[in-house]
Amino acid sequence: MDIDISKVSEKLNLDEEVVKNAIERRVISFCKYRDKRYIIFKKKVRHIERGTILFLNEEMDVVMGYPKIRRALVLDPTVKKHFIDKVIVEEKLNGYNVRIVNIDGEVLGITRGGRICPFTTKKISKLLNTDILEDHPEITLCGEVIGLNNPYVPHYYPEVDREIYKDGDMVIKENLGLYVFDIREGNISLPVEKRNKLLEEYNVPYVKPLGVFKKEDIEEIKNIVLKLNSEGREGIILKDPDMMVGPIKYTTHYTHCEDLSVAFRYTFDLGIHFMFSRLIREGYQSYEFNEGEEELERRAVSIGKSIIYPMVESIRKVSKGELITEDFELYFESEEDIEEFLRYLREVHISYVVKEREVLKDNIYRIVIGKVYPSTKDKIKSYLEGSLW
Amino acid sequence: MDIDISKVSEKLNLDEEVVKNAIERRVISFCKYRDKRYIIFKKKVRHIERGTILFLNEEMDVVMGYPKIRRALVLDPTVKKHFIDKVIVEEKLNGYNVRIVNIDGEVLGITRGGRICPFTTKKISKLLNTDILEDHPEITLCGEVIGLNNPYVPHYYPEVDREIYKDGDMVIKENLGLYVFDIREGNISLPVEKRNKLLEEYNVPYVKPLGVFKKEDIEEIKNIVLKLNSEGREGIILKDPDMMVGPIKYTTHYTHCEDLSVAFRYTFDLGIHFMFSRLIREGYQSYEFNEGEEELERRAVSIGKSIIYPMVESIRKVSKGELITEDFELYFESEEDIEEFLRYLREVHISYVVKEREVLKDNIYRIVIGKVYPSTKDKIKSYLEGSLW
Repeated sequence: MDIDISKVSEKLNLDEEVVKNAIERRVISFCKYRDKRYIIFKKKVRHIERGTILFLNEEMDVVMGYPKIRRALVLDPTVKKHFIDKVIVEEKLNGYNVRIVNIDGEVLGITRGGRICPFTTKKISKLLNTDILEDHPEITLCGEVIGLNNPYVPHYYPEVDREIYKDGDMVIKENLGLYVFDIREGNISLPVEKRNKLLEEYNVPYVKPLGVFKKEDIEEIKNIVLKLNSEGREGIILKDPDMMVGPIKYTTHYTHCEDLSVAFRYTFDLGIHFMFSRLIREGYQSYEFNEGEEELERRAVSIGKSIIYPMVESIRKVSKGELITEDFELYFESEEDIEEFLRYLREVHISYVVKEREVLKDNIYRIVIGKVYPSTKDKIKSYLEGSLW
Repeated sequence: MDIDISKVSEKLNLDEEVVKNAIERRVISFCKYRDKRYIIFKKKVRHIERGTILFLNEEMDVVMGYPKIRRALVLDPTVKKHFIDKVIVEEKLNGYNVRIVNIDGEVLGITRGGRICPFTTKKISKLLNTDILEDHPEITLCGEVIGLNNPYVPHYYPEVDREIYKDGDMVIKENLGLYVFDIREGNISLPVEKRNKLLEEYNVPYVKPLGVFKKEDIEEIKNIVLKLNSEGREGIILKDPDMMVGPIKYTTHYTHCEDLSVAFRYTFDLGIHFMFSRLIREGYQSYEFNEGEEELERRAVSIGKSIIYPMVESIRKVSKGELITEDFELYFESEEDIEEFLRYLREVHISYVVKEREVLKDNIYRIVIGKVYPSTKDKIKSYLEGSLW
């Protein structure tokens, strides 16, 4: 593809050789969304985060990759060591990370990996007021898309049930929402209060603080974790009010077990590091929350069930000749939108089957997509047929 | 070291270039046991198995590595597919694999990795009649050393309790035994009956068959597995009577959970593939044994406990400043034997601490060695001190 390497290297402050090399090694890949051409960094290259994208437009607009948020295995003393003084606790939502930008007058939704997702891009205008990006074209809104009806992380959140009416009738209940958790300019995050003020001005939904504490108030933070756990929610993000140090995440027992269930349902696709890390988190959490015999046993039972139940279920399914898929129910406004999204899935090499497809009203299209987990299917089948380990 | 590469390559039927290359890449390493010099293959090279050793003596005696035994995840149809007609079921013992050979008139015990182990070598003469190797110097006895009092896999087996008397008094009860499970000449295994006959002639202990079945009699084999499981034993090895196809192994729920306990006690040393494989085995076993709600739940509980209990225990230990070690109680006949063995541990890069050391009688020396798991200790400590994941 035609690309001005010297301009790219100047824009990103990378040596030309580094850029050339990254292209050769396919660490940089070339993509297109409608009339927009852009390049993606699929891995970190020097100071350029994975997921960074650069548009091949006049200005060569750059959207920096969203940095990895590191994790505390124990809150005490990690929080005390890491933060400066105060700590803001926000809820960590279990959805997918999206960066929202205005490029040449168009609002786009970019995934963590750096792809412009047509599904997300189209939903954004329904989920938030995009005027904020018109008035402030230099910022990136960083948010989490949550709810059952998204194509990546389907997880029900009661607060994002949206009833869609046509001609006075409720046609669908779409469970989908978007909460902004960070506003960035280049590599800098806005201080939390400034972020909130700006978002409130435009009535953009954002993750509300669950509390502001002194960094020594670990017990209060632990109580928040326990409460979120009992409500079946994912966890917390801890932030310095001025964003002078990076945020830290910490997740609930509930989420670790949910993750394990998913991992063992798609046994051979999700990767053993995924499983191992969840188990490790459980160990440290049990230790830190100073669990007695009874609580420890309860934890053991739910871990064991999260592992063995979904795994056996998948084996049984394959033994009956059924396909192992993860199903996503999505709503679109047109056939073209569906087709564009399916084309996108193929482009990013996600295998899927269309399980259901129907028109509910003039411009409400419902589709159920089954994401196929090929290794899980093939390996289970092969072992059941007598292959040796 | 001085080594005649052309002779080695001729002896092993490997190109000289291949041998040279393996030496350069340190796949071949040079070792010494008393006056015996030998080389080890630390990885498989062409047809030469990992653990193969070649003595740098006049004859350049070669002891082939013991081949990996493959595993069935489900007995049905794997056994039917793999075997020819009949299947001999033998117990799989939970100890360590040793090859016993006579080199220049000396009987040696070689570990799976290809090292001459001084502990094993000295115990052999007490555990079996080595005349068999004097009369048949061309054979390799392949056996499993089991019992609490060995330096690698301490696991109690009631049948190998040995009471050692001195001057009419019982001084110690050593739990240690050796059962031969294969006799090999080069790369060929003796048929099972021939093996048994030869071993009986010399009264050498060997693993007794638990049954001989038609390969279609899977239910009978499953019943053996259930019985072994209820007795807390490791599993089975399935063999073709004539050893015309390779053996297959299959293990019990009991052993999977024991393995998980060990893995999560030494969380960061044993490797996640070790953990993952045990969990996978559980899934297929539960499926194949057609477990109902209750059995499945029981399995889930024991898996969960095997993971979380030892992990939390290790974290607690480190938090109190204690060392994470796996302890081995061993008996020797002299100070020199102890020193030789400790030197050997250092040579093979096993970190240890001597926890107890005492003389029980003139020539019975008791020592408790704690094998140190350095990554587990360091990583747990670091996370407890606030390191981010």
